[in-house]
Amino acid sequence: MVSHAQQDDAGLIDVHTHVVPQSFPAYLGRHLDAPWPSMMPAQACHQHVMVSGAVYRTVSHQCWDCAARQADMAARKIGRQVLSPMPELLSYWMAPEDGAAMCRYLNEVIASMVADHPAHFMGLGAVPLQDVSLAIHELDVAMHRLGMAGVEIAGNVNGTVIGDPRFLPFFEAAADWGAAVFVHPLRPSGMDRLVGPAALEQVLAFPGETGLAAASMITGGTLARLPNLRIAYSHGGGSLSALLPRLQHAWQSLPNVRDAMPIEPAQAARRMFYDNLVYDADTIHRLIQVFGNSQIMVGTDYPFSIMDNDPVGRLRSLALSDDVIQQLRSGNARRWLDLA
Amino acid sequence: MVSHAQQDDAGLIDVHTHVVPQSFPAYLGRHLDAPWPSMMPAQACHQHVMVSGAVYRTVSHQCWDCAARQADMAARKIGRQVLSPMPELLSYWMAPEDGAAMCRYLNEVIASMVADHPAHFMGLGAVPLQDVSLAIHELDVAMHRLGMAGVEIAGNVNGTVIGDPRFLPFFEAAADWGAAVFVHPLRPSGMDRLVGPAALEQVLAFPGETGLAAASMITGGTLARLPNLRIAYSHGGGSLSALLPRLQHAWQSLPNVRDAMPIEPAQAARRMFYDNLVYDADTIHRLIQVFGNSQIMVGTDYPFSIMDNDPVGRLRSLALSDDVIQQLRSGNARRWLDLA
Repeated sequence: MVSHAQQDDAGLIDVHTHVVPQSFPAYLGRHLDAPWPSMMPAQACHQHVMVSGAVYRTVSHQCWDCAARQADMAARKIGRQVLSPMPELLSYWMAPEDGAAMCRYLNEVIASMVADHPAHFMGLGAVPLQDVSLAIHELDVAMHRLGMAGVEIAGNVNGTVIGDPRFLPFFEAAADWGAAVFVHPLRPSGMDRLVGPAALEQVLAFPGETGLAAASMITGGTLARLPNLRIAYSHGGGSLSALLPRLQHAWQSLPNVRDAMPIEPAQAARRMFYDNLVYDADTIHRLIQVFGNSQIMVGTDYPFSIMDNDPVGRLRSLALSDDVIQQLRSGNARRWLDLA
Repeated sequence: MVSHAQQDDAGLIDVHTHVVPQSFPAYLGRHLDAPWPSMMPAQACHQHVMVSGAVYRTVSHQCWDCAARQADMAARKIGRQVLSPMPELLSYWMAPEDGAAMCRYLNEVIASMVADHPAHFMGLGAVPLQDVSLAIHELDVAMHRLGMAGVEIAGNVNGTVIGDPRFLPFFEAAADWGAAVFVHPLRPSGMDRLVGPAALEQVLAFPGETGLAAASMITGGTLARLPNLRIAYSHGGGSLSALLPRLQHAWQSLPNVRDAMPIEPAQAARRMFYDNLVYDADTIHRLIQVFGNSQIMVGTDYPFSIMDNDPVGRLRSLALSDDVIQQLRSGNARRWLDLA
């Protein structure tokens, strides 16, 4: 594969940034009590995302305001943001037709932001994976009508992990159509193992969820069946870097584990992409060691409160060669996104 | 603290080895359908551990035969094994009085193995943590009557993680009485996220369970309240090394996370001990980087099929200084076990 690193002069690509629309359309479905979101005014430049009568999260205008985003990007020396929905909006728990309607709305909002500022934004859409056929249809619309780069999905859909065979037709379509797939944790396992503030869901349960989701793509065989699938994981793949050596040992020493996996796990993991959102230089070095120079990209979680505020400084702190830094800045993201 | 590394000439200490008794007493409780284990003959030198009428696991005579263990130790240049029950025997799901009876039996079996070969074995007992008062009573017996070094516990007790405040009185007793506590995964979270052979429970769900259990001791405050508690985690702490940088960032950037934790997470983690059972030199180096030279010990999972067969070779592969190797071989284990 040709490296795009040397061709890249458009600056750093941030693959992990979220969008919340400024408003939501009225619910037009037929289900009583559908958890359809709405917006309520909050403090200046903020709105409350309301779900089922309660504030789900209070978000700032950077979630929808392209000018505000561009000002922040200029200040932080970000060349391009990959936009994806705030994961809670993926709506897998709604009736499929409601979920599809929400995904379509999100995709149109994000595609419109990209169309207005194509040099600064690329878009990842949403698909209603609670119904695989509808999800494939929405992927078709996102890729072929709205011109999106791919889709964001969660690590599980109502408790079923993405490596489950039921999702294989969706990943086949994503591979066939060249969609970049970004996996973000949502409604994670392990919630009953947390003791402390509510934020620990994101802090501690999210990484484990992502690690198990990524592992399931290896152990379930999806990755081996789809060599062209371009799939990336948020938060450095979560716990995967810690799980992988044990999975590799089991593959080498336990025949029934080996028989289940045509590609050895350590190599399979190096076919996938990961953002560098782990907040620590040593930990990014560890990601590079486990997954390879060629698979790590910049991600910040902009504009949420847990975001990494200085991605350029973070890269500088790694003290890597210019070539590798260029891979992390944009070269790897360009391969994942299939940017010329 | 005085380092014991220079005083150590008894050879390598393996802190993670399991025992299954050669037989179990008949069930004498009053609960119909209690899942009390029994043994059934299997192939030569093996027995089936039967639970509720089915084979739970087929185990070899190394599980109970001190001579067989000592021969293996001599061949592998292991000086001393720390014996702990096969985790499934911890019996947290039995009625408390049944669980207490099983723990007492395990403790007497293990204490007897140690009494017969005190230079080669040390013992960790079991306590019925489904009833904290009974667990404290059994800890008292294990420490003060049976002379054990401490106890093995699971990362959760019937779904409640060990950092939950209900277990604080138990950990207070463990700290007061100088018991070494060894945390092993059992009935882990995340089982519904696995796709593949049954062994993935141990391979992929175990590390996440241990990571969340260790994190709960930090986020729930137990560790901060008990500076003298000596607690160790199996499998290199599982996913904790991957969770910790994110927890540290959250502690630094989110006030409600910081307010909940009097000690910063990165420092709190370096108060705890971890075995090196991660099957890979780079990953052991990562454990040292995250947790410190002084907190990593040798563990092998002897005599189960996933065990690390050559712990001496594993240490040699690390290419560390003699002083650090000596810490990992035995010095850190001696501190954890409070061996003079």
